[in-house]
Amino acid sequence: MVEKKLSHFDASGRAKMVDVTGKDVTAREAVAVGSVHMKPETLALIEGGEIKKGDVLAVAQVAGIMGAKKTPDLVPMCHPLMLTGVALSFEIEKGPGIRGLSTINISATVKTKGQTGVEMEALTAVSTAALTIYDMCKAADKEMILGEISLLSKKGGKSGDFKRGPGG
Amino acid sequence: MVEKKLSHFDASGRAKMVDVTGKDVTAREAVAVGSVHMKPETLALIEGGEIKKGDVLAVAQVAGIMGAKKTPDLVPMCHPLMLTGVALSFEIEKGPGIRGLSTINISATVKTKGQTGVEMEALTAVSTAALTIYDMCKAADKEMILGEISLLSKKGGKSGDFKRGPGG
Amino acid sequence: MVEKKLSHFDASGRAKMVDVTGKDVTAREAVAVGSVHMKPETLALIEGGEIKKGDVLAVAQVAGIMGAKKTPDLVPMCHPLMLTGVALSFEIEKGPGIRGLSTINISATVKTKGQTGVEMEALTAVSTAALTIYDMCKAADKEMILGEISLLSKKGGKSGDFKRGPGG
Amino acid sequence: MVEKKLSHFDASGRAKMVDVTGKDVTAREAVAVGSVHMKPETLALIEGGEIKKGDVLAVAQVAGIMGAKKTPDLVPMCHPLMLTGVALSFEIEKGPGIRGLSTINISATVKTKGQTGVEMEALTAVSTAALTIYDMCKAADKEMILGEISLLSKKGGKSGDFKRGPGG
Amino acid sequence: MVEKKLSHFDASGRAKMVDVTGKDVTAREAVAVGSVHMKPETLALIEGGEIKKGDVLAVAQVAGIMGAKKTPDLVPMCHPLMLTGVALSFEIEKGPGIRGLSTINISATVKTKGQTGVEMEALTAVSTAALTIYDMCKAADKEMILGEISLLSKKGGKSGDFKRGPGG
Amino acid sequence: MVEKKLSHFDASGRAKMVDVTGKDVTAREAVAVGSVHMKPETLALIEGGEIKKGDVLAVAQVAGIMGAKKTPDLVPMCHPLMLTGVALSFEIEKGPGIRGLSTINISATVKTKGQTGVEMEALTAVSTAALTIYDMCKAADKEMILGEISLLSKKGGKSGDFKRGPGG
Repeated sequence: MVEKKLSHFDASGRAKMVDVTGKDVTAREAVAVGSVHMKPETLALIEGGEIKKGDVLAVAQVAGIMGAKKTPDLVPMCHPLMLTGVALSFEIEKGPGIRGLSTINISATVKTKGQTGVEMEALTAVSTAALTIYDMCKAADKEMILGEISLLSKKGGKSGDFKRGPGG
Repeated sequence: MVEKKLSHFDASGRAKMVDVTGKDVTAREAVAVGSVHMKPETLALIEGGEIKKGDVLAVAQVAGIMGAKKTPDLVPMCHPLMLTGVALSFEIEKGPGIRGLSTINISATVKTKGQTGVEMEALTAVSTAALTIYDMCKAADKEMILGEISLLSKKGGKSGDFKRGPGG
Repeated sequence: MVEKKLSHFDASGRAKMVDVTGKDVTAREAVAVGSVHMKPETLALIEGGEIKKGDVLAVAQVAGIMGAKKTPDLVPMCHPLMLTGVALSFEIEKGPGIRGLSTINISATVKTKGQTGVEMEALTAVSTAALTIYDMCKAADKEMILGEISLLSKKGGKSGDFKRGPGG
Repeated sequence: MVEKKLSHFDASGRAKMVDVTGKDVTAREAVAVGSVHMKPETLALIEGGEIKKGDVLAVAQVAGIMGAKKTPDLVPMCHPLMLTGVALSFEIEKGPGIRGLSTINISATVKTKGQTGVEMEALTAVSTAALTIYDMCKAADKEMILGEISLLSKKGGKSGDFKRGPGG
Repeated sequence: MVEKKLSHFDASGRAKMVDVTGKDVTAREAVAVGSVHMKPETLALIEGGEIKKGDVLAVAQVAGIMGAKKTPDLVPMCHPLMLTGVALSFEIEKGPGIRGLSTINISATVKTKGQTGVEMEALTAVSTAALTIYDMCKAADKEMILGEISLLSKKGGKSGDFKRGPGG
Repeated sequence: MVEKKLSHFDASGRAKMVDVTGKDVTAREAVAVGSVHMKPETLALIEGGEIKKGDVLAVAQVAGIMGAKKTPDLVPMCHPLMLTGVALSFEIEKGPGIRGLSTINISATVKTKGQTGVEMEALTAVSTAALTIYDMCKAADKEMILGEISLLSKKGGKSGDFKRGPGG
């Protein structure tokens, strides 16, 4: 059930950066997940063909961490935050799964000690890592798909903890 | 069939920004598409409930255009390019569709006149717009999903035109 | 009466970022105001002519909020700060006023909880919004004027509150 | 007379970065002017009191040049451009002039060889230099005013040359 | 003796931004030093020949301070920090010293009140200042050398104070 | 022999971005080299101890490439350029060499097709990679030294090719 208002708008309906001046500083954490789907041949190139295993993912990992730091520069109403930790992990599903594709799953965990949460930073980290995987493999496969990205969990802050349901 | 090598790596398997110095300057265009899935109640808030219709999308549109310009700053091996045009459009599918969710479809068209293509810029524009929609509605609905993002078409450059197949 | 020294210089007369390590963390707020002057015909285009009312201002509002976040990247001696709130508002004076021009007034309120004030962030927000209005209308009117920008008020911090006098 | 449409909006009234892909590459130049008004005592501090003459202006000059380069990052619909030259100059009017204030006049000249003009870059250079002067003197004088900023002239490009009229 | 592990890697050997969420907020300071070596004739140009004395260094000083603020954007695993003070100083050794060259020594002091140290910010400030000196003089002398850069001292934080030894 | 003036200053001795509007667009390339010196035990940690071989260098390589793209944002008078290629390589000298230290040598090659050279981009790439190596190993060894950085060669442009002499 949706009950809250969209807090990013002021009384006249215009966008604003929500005022969190009065909120407490607490430890916060968010985990987001996403994926990149590709032909099995493309995954084979990444995994062990032409190139040293893992290098595409090494670049994507750096990009995801740097992307998390750029969140307030990308997402207009995001508050700047001093991130205290960012980690990404990748998991390969050779499959082939749905539509005959292989998948690289991406997970990002972001932490801060601040007045607002880090959901956007975790989502941006996953999104930037996925874009980077696409970029590094696009000469071989332009039909890759950046798969669904969602928030898996969130801890800390007044609105309480959030954990995506099993059908989420 | 995947035949090309992953061109983003040098002879020793390390990442590099591919050398395009010798490529011709041609007009290039790329179109990418994506979506955000959400509860019908969340879409109702965006569309006409609390807030002036369209404002979430107005902010997402600005974010997507600015995001396209930040691509070489986000995606490590991307070449800087002087974009000559960026446009985004949104289309609402009240549905409810799969999983009972409503959907906002996002499309971005990016153009340049340069030595390399703008696929990543179009994908980044869609991705940034989707992140912004999530951000502006997350106080109401944290279970929104950033839907699949893919390249729809690409024109210009030596590798020729690309258009996603019907089953793509 | 001007009594204080210019604190942005060290003993040898060179610029520095003033040391605020020992200052208390307090809630701070600053309000800045500015304007853009234009031909009444230009204002008519913005207000209701070609385009959906308010869109120029919607883009300017996003630009102003993002501009506030970029302040330490633009103004060399500014401290980075975690802004906790940014809001802009616009007011239209059809006039015609001085020099026969119509005016869009811009006001920006910026908040933080930190060791130094947010005057520069409020001034930068107004300045960026004004530049954006100019940009979006310059195809129609290159003679627009970015009007005077000043600090209206400031709260919090050791130097105390400031409020611009009536003749300010 | 205002005749042109506001080109920054698409058919549905939404903002876009105008498509200039088909425009010719030509040498372009824009000159913008602005000012900062302050108490004569504040100007005295800048000019020769506490600090080495000119240092406030040296910092403002660097900030203005770097600000010109950041224009497409600040002004949402601006095209990225490879600037080929940026110069700022300052002129002091001890006055006292209007409202008993002294004035520092700022002028910025920006050049490029590209498909669109550099008006916004010149205006942003002036604006950033003015913000920097305010920042460096605000410990002494919070009532400084960033004076009017306008485009003085523009050369190159299809829309032809522009020069501000004597009453401009 | 090297005893600690490289903390920037996770259990699977991938890079991460180290989690400092649980660390105390303390006042921290770091001092880094470096140099630029050049022909005596180049130093003469900087010092008093063509140009107003000190201007190359004035630009380098602004660049160094702004560079310190960009550290988390440059160095992938660096935490964003709210710097509370940055100062640079320059010292000229006409020499000629080793290899017959003159030297400009650079020192940067950076402070913060945060959960992690500012060593990288001090090193980046020196590095950016040195690059700027090179840039401004390279039309006259491309053989300049950016000399060794090292951390001189560090205060605050759990790992304790550090001071480079006499043979360091 | 130093004969040229410092071109980064205008007639009144103030800094400017040199006007290159009239210069030809030519292919340009620059190679810069540098190093990081460290205790043999620190190199052992990087090479094969705790962590997967090469990962510190993989992160440094990404940082160097992204650093090259940020050059005009770091070095105030640098022109923005569309880089057409960036590659870095690393070479390990276990030594121990001078002062008993081991060394990682860094080389960066940057290319563009533009109106001005890419010396600063190559130097910035090396500098950013060196800072990143320091950052990733500083928990183990704060006494590492960022070694000398210099321009090895430069091709293209009116001032002709440059190659560092053997005693350089």
